Amino acid sequence: MSTKPISDRLKDLGIELPQTASPAAAYVMAVTSGSTVFVSGHIAKQAGKPWVGKLGLNMDTASGQLAARAIAIDLMATLQTHLGSLDRVKRIVKVMGLVNSTETYTEQHLVINGCSELVLEVFGEAGRHARSAFGVAQIPLGACVEIELIAEIE
Amino acid sequence: MSTKPISDRLKDLGIELPQTASPAAAYVMAVTSGSTVFVSGHIAKQAGKPWVGKLGLNMDTASGQLAARAIAIDLMATLQTHLGSLDRVKRIVKVMGLVNSTETYTEQHLVINGCSELVLEVFGEAGRHARSAFGVAQIPLGACVEIELIAEIE
Amino acid sequence: MSTKPISDRLKDLGIELPQTASPAAAYVMAVTSGSTVFVSGHIAKQAGKPWVGKLGLNMDTASGQLAARAIAIDLMATLQTHLGSLDRVKRIVKVMGLVNSTETYTEQHLVINGCSELVLEVFGEAGRHARSAFGVAQIPLGACVEIELIAEIE
Repeated sequence: MSTKPISDRLKDLGIELPQTASPAAAYVMAVTSGSTVFVSGHIAKQAGKPWVGKLGLNMDTASGQLAARAIAIDLMATLQTHLGSLDRVKRIVKVMGLVNSTETYTEQHLVINGCSELVLEVFGEAGRHARSAFGVAQIPLGACVEIELIAEIE
Repeated sequence: MSTKPISDRLKDLGIELPQTASPAAAYVMAVTSGSTVFVSGHIAKQAGKPWVGKLGLNMDTASGQLAARAIAIDLMATLQTHLGSLDRVKRIVKVMGLVNSTETYTEQHLVINGCSELVLEVFGEAGRHARSAFGVAQIPLGACVEIELIAEIE
Repeated sequence: MSTKPISDRLKDLGIELPQTASPAAAYVMAVTSGSTVFVSGHIAKQAGKPWVGKLGLNMDTASGQLAARAIAIDLMATLQTHLGSLDRVKRIVKVMGLVNSTETYTEQHLVINGCSELVLEVFGEAGRHARSAFGVAQIPLGACVEIELIAEIE
């Protein structure tokens, strides 16, 4: 990871992290265990509301990539709130990306690249993560994509 | 976590943990690595048999919540067998909840609350976990819900 | 784990690990964090190409098991490339197996046994892992099975 603060990289990319919602539910958005941070699955949102859609039915791969990129921003916002600063991230360890898919849509990997590529741009070498991507029958509130993340901290 | 033993909390809630089945398969029900316990995905059971159903087709959200709650009890039974005592749990770190869903059912988060809320009741602050919930095409033996869990121990 | 090198066990089983592809994408095939190795989801391949199929539609359980076994070999190849030697594996901690399934196919656990059983054969006691298996709507490139793995190293 370069010595440039992550906040500067985000500014270079024109990305402003949103306010994170306070957890309303029976779970929390992130938990640290030792040096590992487990971030809850984040559904895609657009203008603060669930980004509804099913790939292969009413949404194309390019739109799915934008949704996955939007989730990456929300995941970083959650990490920042949880850690105080994204500079505490030593490594993005793993991403699991779920794509709301018909039984025949097979480009889940391209959709989740929308998240993976932004993570790489922001974190550089420290952003090179392991990953699984696959198509699910549905996602809470009808969202088109859901992504969870594991990070290592100093 | 309060100083009250978990076994007392379970008694207060009227919950008796079942006997855990001996692992019959090519895998085990839980593995400890360092201070992290990875618990295998547990399918919902009713009277010892797979709790069969698909949300959106032949099962409603309230029934799904009961199934998720039943899995939480089985997960705790597995943890107790694996650890000797639930008091060794420092934190419930993460839950992944899979709901057997039609292509249009979108209340997976409400279903998995049936597990999350019981975990909170039993473990208190130590039960506040990260979570992902989503809808899958099917689950082994036709079960309506499957949940896996990660816990941190002392 | 017996003191016999894993490479000898593979030879006994007549298994030759394939060359691993260099990561072409926005992610990597494995990341080590502390003593934990997170291996990316690997899709089933046949003769180097995606092993396409959907269980319950155009593929039976026995074929799915062969696909899961083939993935186990690829996962071990990735681990060997990542670690230098499979003898550094202290424990196979967890396997997550996704089966490309119709809405009615319910033998995902039997399919993923194709992976779990080979892992046990190769690693012995150190191969006894936690596991989740479930059916997904689709998998990248139409593959029939995808499996990710977590291992502990010395």
